[in-house]
Amino acid sequence: MSVSPLIERLVEALRCLPGVGPKSARRMVYHLLERDRERAELLAQTLIEAMRKIGRCARCRTLSEHELCTLCAAPGRDPSQLCVVESPTDLEAIESGTGFRGGYFVLMGLLSPLDGIGPADLGLDAFERRLDAGQVRELIIAVGTTVEGQATAHYLSELSRGRGIRVTRLAHGIPLGGDLEYVDSVTLAHAFQGRMALE
Amino acid sequence: MSVSPLIERLVEALRCLPGVGPKSARRMVYHLLERDRERAELLAQTLIEAMRKIGRCARCRTLSEHELCTLCAAPGRDPSQLCVVESPTDLEAIESGTGFRGGYFVLMGLLSPLDGIGPADLGLDAFERRLDAGQVRELIIAVGTTVEGQATAHYLSELSRGRGIRVTRLAHGIPLGGDLEYVDSVTLAHAFQGRMALE
Repeated sequence: MSVSPLIERLVEALRCLPGVGPKSARRMVYHLLERDRERAELLAQTLIEAMRKIGRCARCRTLSEHELCTLCAAPGRDPSQLCVVESPTDLEAIESGTGFRGGYFVLMGLLSPLDGIGPADLGLDAFERRLDAGQVRELIIAVGTTVEGQATAHYLSELSRGRGIRVTRLAHGIPLGGDLEYVDSVTLAHAFQGRMALE
Repeated sequence: MSVSPLIERLVEALRCLPGVGPKSARRMVYHLLERDRERAELLAQTLIEAMRKIGRCARCRTLSEHELCTLCAAPGRDPSQLCVVESPTDLEAIESGTGFRGGYFVLMGLLSPLDGIGPADLGLDAFERRLDAGQVRELIIAVGTTVEGQATAHYLSELSRGRGIRVTRLAHGIPLGGDLEYVDSVTLAHAFQGRMALE
């Protein structure tokens, strides 16, 4: 316990950050108070601005402080390819790690009837309207392979096939440079069954 | 890089926290935006309040949002014992881990002529005034044993002896429950030389 009730309140408040326990929160408080008050105030102002301004992009539903996110507002993206991801971090991983330059749709979750998460919670009405606009030729499903991921992928592909849109999914298999002995057996069996002809 | 410049600014601002790198800052931002906006705003408000209100206790110089910290303002502390520590965290360790109920003086640093830190930077003028008030009978020096700690301890003890005040220092030796083979050799040599008669 600190001598200062206000310091205790700040230690407690910092614990909303994931991975910050009581000891590291206390270290942060003393560091900021003794050495970095200006940057602490800047952090506070930026936190407030971000929490108040950042909502969802009206088109792809990713987190954005504008009506349209920078990707949806950018000219020159290919509207014939639409990539569906679970979260903004997945979007960023694909955007920075691949050459994909089409559009995105961010679900912000996966279908999970047991948790009460249905199509409306994932904005799939907006998703259907986007398919109905008629520009999308290929739907690329980039969600994980958990039970919820599989169910979501199935649901999305049904929506798309009904409209004559080609549906693809990211390839699953052994990571490049991965040693066979460190690959889990489910992935290994999947990769073995899905073996491809050498060209 | 995120799709949102504001998210990037918040990631950057979070890096003022010690131990938070770019990856964990990004994880924090998405966690707060997707799940915990209310607590993030509370954190921001508490940060601002703490940075603006918390100064130094007028008496012991520890961090406090009041003119006098809760310890200096508390009745029933023994004014004849004064314990000098380097930082507010050291004060808290002694307050919670020992039965000490005297007064404190927090240096907020150690004498270090090479870094340009002299007696005035540690508030030693206020320290001398406190000794001159005539209530202190024992000065307990609880700073570390680095070169700067030793120099500071020497300086403080000179100030106190000149006024006929008894000076003590925390005992150094083998930690309780410590295994001899894991104790560093400097500590072991010090403990051997300072061995005490069994009573």
